[in-house]
Amino acid sequence: MQEKFVPNFSCQFNADPLAFFSFSNQEILSFTMKIRNIQTQKARIDSNIRNAYINFSEMTISVVVVNAEYGGKLIRGYGFCSNGRYAQCQIIKERFLPRIFNSDLSKVLDENGVLDPRKIWQTFMQNEKPGGHGDRAVAAGALDMAFWDVYAKAYQKPLWKILSEQFNDNQFDEQIFVYPGGGYYYPGKGYDGLKDEFKKYQDQGYKVLKMKVGGDSIDEDLRRIEAALSVVGKGENLCVDANARFDLNEALAFADAIQHYNLMWYEEPLDPDDFLSHAILAERYAPSIATGENLFSKHGLQNLLRHGGLRPDRDWIQLDPALSYGLTHYLEIIKLVENFGWSRRRLIPHGGHQLALNIAAGLQTGGSESYPGVFQPFGGFADDYEIVDGFIRPQEQPGLGIEEKSDLFNKIQEVFD
Amino acid sequence: MQEKFVPNFSCQFNADPLAFFSFSNQEILSFTMKIRNIQTQKARIDSNIRNAYINFSEMTISVVVVNAEYGGKLIRGYGFCSNGRYAQCQIIKERFLPRIFNSDLSKVLDENGVLDPRKIWQTFMQNEKPGGHGDRAVAAGALDMAFWDVYAKAYQKPLWKILSEQFNDNQFDEQIFVYPGGGYYYPGKGYDGLKDEFKKYQDQGYKVLKMKVGGDSIDEDLRRIEAALSVVGKGENLCVDANARFDLNEALAFADAIQHYNLMWYEEPLDPDDFLSHAILAERYAPSIATGENLFSKHGLQNLLRHGGLRPDRDWIQLDPALSYGLTHYLEIIKLVENFGWSRRRLIPHGGHQLALNIAAGLQTGGSESYPGVFQPFGGFADDYEIVDGFIRPQEQPGLGIEEKSDLFNKIQEVFD
Repeated sequence: MQEKFVPNFSCQFNADPLAFFSFSNQEILSFTMKIRNIQTQKARIDSNIRNAYINFSEMTISVVVVNAEYGGKLIRGYGFCSNGRYAQCQIIKERFLPRIFNSDLSKVLDENGVLDPRKIWQTFMQNEKPGGHGDRAVAAGALDMAFWDVYAKAYQKPLWKILSEQFNDNQFDEQIFVYPGGGYYYPGKGYDGLKDEFKKYQDQGYKVLKMKVGGDSIDEDLRRIEAALSVVGKGENLCVDANARFDLNEALAFADAIQHYNLMWYEEPLDPDDFLSHAILAERYAPSIATGENLFSKHGLQNLLRHGGLRPDRDWIQLDPALSYGLTHYLEIIKLVENFGWSRRRLIPHGGHQLALNIAAGLQTGGSESYPGVFQPFGGFADDYEIVDGFIRPQEQPGLGIEEKSDLFNKIQEVFD
Repeated sequence: MQEKFVPNFSCQFNADPLAFFSFSNQEILSFTMKIRNIQTQKARIDSNIRNAYINFSEMTISVVVVNAEYGGKLIRGYGFCSNGRYAQCQIIKERFLPRIFNSDLSKVLDENGVLDPRKIWQTFMQNEKPGGHGDRAVAAGALDMAFWDVYAKAYQKPLWKILSEQFNDNQFDEQIFVYPGGGYYYPGKGYDGLKDEFKKYQDQGYKVLKMKVGGDSIDEDLRRIEAALSVVGKGENLCVDANARFDLNEALAFADAIQHYNLMWYEEPLDPDDFLSHAILAERYAPSIATGENLFSKHGLQNLLRHGGLRPDRDWIQLDPALSYGLTHYLEIIKLVENFGWSRRRLIPHGGHQLALNIAAGLQTGGSESYPGVFQPFGGFADDYEIVDGFIRPQEQPGLGIEEKSDLFNKIQEVFD
């Protein structure tokens, strides 16, 4: 039996959670992580932008803070859901948290006494019926993120490094493809507004850019696409995103109109659950199609891969780990994709947040969305990040790196004040 | 222009909402319904029963009350979601209700100045992204139900009669097939417990009975099925429900073991979203399959009908209108089923509530589930209902008839006290 390590400092629950610490291996073996408390709050990220399906004037998200104690030290983990599906605090507070606090947490530790996010996930998802992967998946995404942040901080490593070591044979990417999820509609924007926005992204180092379509007539969208192409130069630098606005006939008509541009991808042409229509579209539209941000689970993705007719050599899958039951579930999504014979490089997670970036780096997906201008402060990466020719390096800070994005970190403090 | 009708009684917001009233046609033409307020609360329906997937020890549901004013009178509409997916009050309060109250309600009236539930639905579903049909569908189910209750009460007719007149060429059923959603597992129940439960249902007039399976080994389930058959007599009077517990191999093994009983149906053998596995099962299992209570939208059902291999001459579809965006959306589900060449008689809504019964009567589905013993007081029908040889008559009271189910009516008053 190892002797119990007694820390020689008092338990500093008001301490700076960034004061990371170091323990010897023997010390770590004697520790047992405990949860001090878990809080969740709604935050507003409303704005006047819109896509072809909704406007974002009333958008909210859930923020989660897990305060854990390990070796006498406070470890604070942060989580949030991506934009688009609203805050889900009731599900977290009334369903997930009681299950965590009513369970025996000694059974959800790893071999070093650290809370294992995958076992925590199993705990909070007890007594949830199958099917219905919607708001619940969003709530789970925020909570799961906070537990992974705690986990990586306990090991004093960036999350991407943990993922690389534990789930990817120590492989990782030092350069991650990113593209800004921009080109939204807003009042009075016009062609020049779109071009100015795109030039700004280029100045920031982005190469592949994305714009919304489907909000106007095809003719108007073609004029907007031409304006965008005048900035990005060629089709392989431009994505268009219809946000599931089209029915099959409209999606086909739009496909015919843009096919000759050979764009980087044509995103969410159809209702996300209408797999057969995707298959019909893929018969007619030769360039890349991208979809998946509104599927929310491996069950939905399984149907897309079985029935959606997508092509493993060119199409893109965009499930968002922060909307789809979290990183824990995303590990299963990667397995599923590979079971279907696809490369994980065909995955580019939606959401433009630091979780997606850590996943892209440590699990080597095809890249990550980025939100340099929208859904602030939850979108975007660390303050000092640099985009070079459309690629970014992952952060060096432990956990998700949320402390290094000062507007986000301040906002989280403010939300829980 | 018609002269504005001025009611000669004061607006009685504390009046008995059951004091129904009559107006002349001309009076009605001058009325404009207004919403006084909408309230929603969580109610507990926890119990010690379980199915093969979850236990119900922490189950909650949302209850909604809409207080509307029409012709100087209060009309109070009640709604709730079915059991199984928990209360969704945050979605109702924070997303749906502000959209209703921020909209111009004069645009959502029908030609008699009555709030049209279908237009209200469009109002509260604004700015909701496509896909992700889960908790949101449950929240919408409860809210939509309350507006249909108001609507039918404004016309002083049972809801089934409104449905018959407006959506079913005046056709309706006077006798509706019902079966009790019983046979749950609970501690210490045993074979005799199951048989006693089934005899009680028979004494109440039910003929087709249902039991849970999948919680034990196949051998144990077969012994339980034999016990049940000793009461119901033959396979066509017995349904088994696996509550999505099985993977494909388990579902096939179970199918092989029960095929010779030729049961009324084999319910939820598989994950609700695993359509391909349903198709494989249907290749091997000749008797009826039933599923759909965990699909939640026409999008899910469309995939089941496209990819699930179900057979229009024998299989059953069980989407629950109170979990799946409400009656408003169920009207589209009926259309979808018929577009696929199926009869609406293949629909037997899950939920055992008065909404499903009104739908079954007025829209002539194949019947309705019934909860004589569980999920009280929200399950079940009016106090004086009578089951004869497995059939029930619809209620004569205006609206859903919730006031005629005294335990439910009392519970709702208590929840809002």
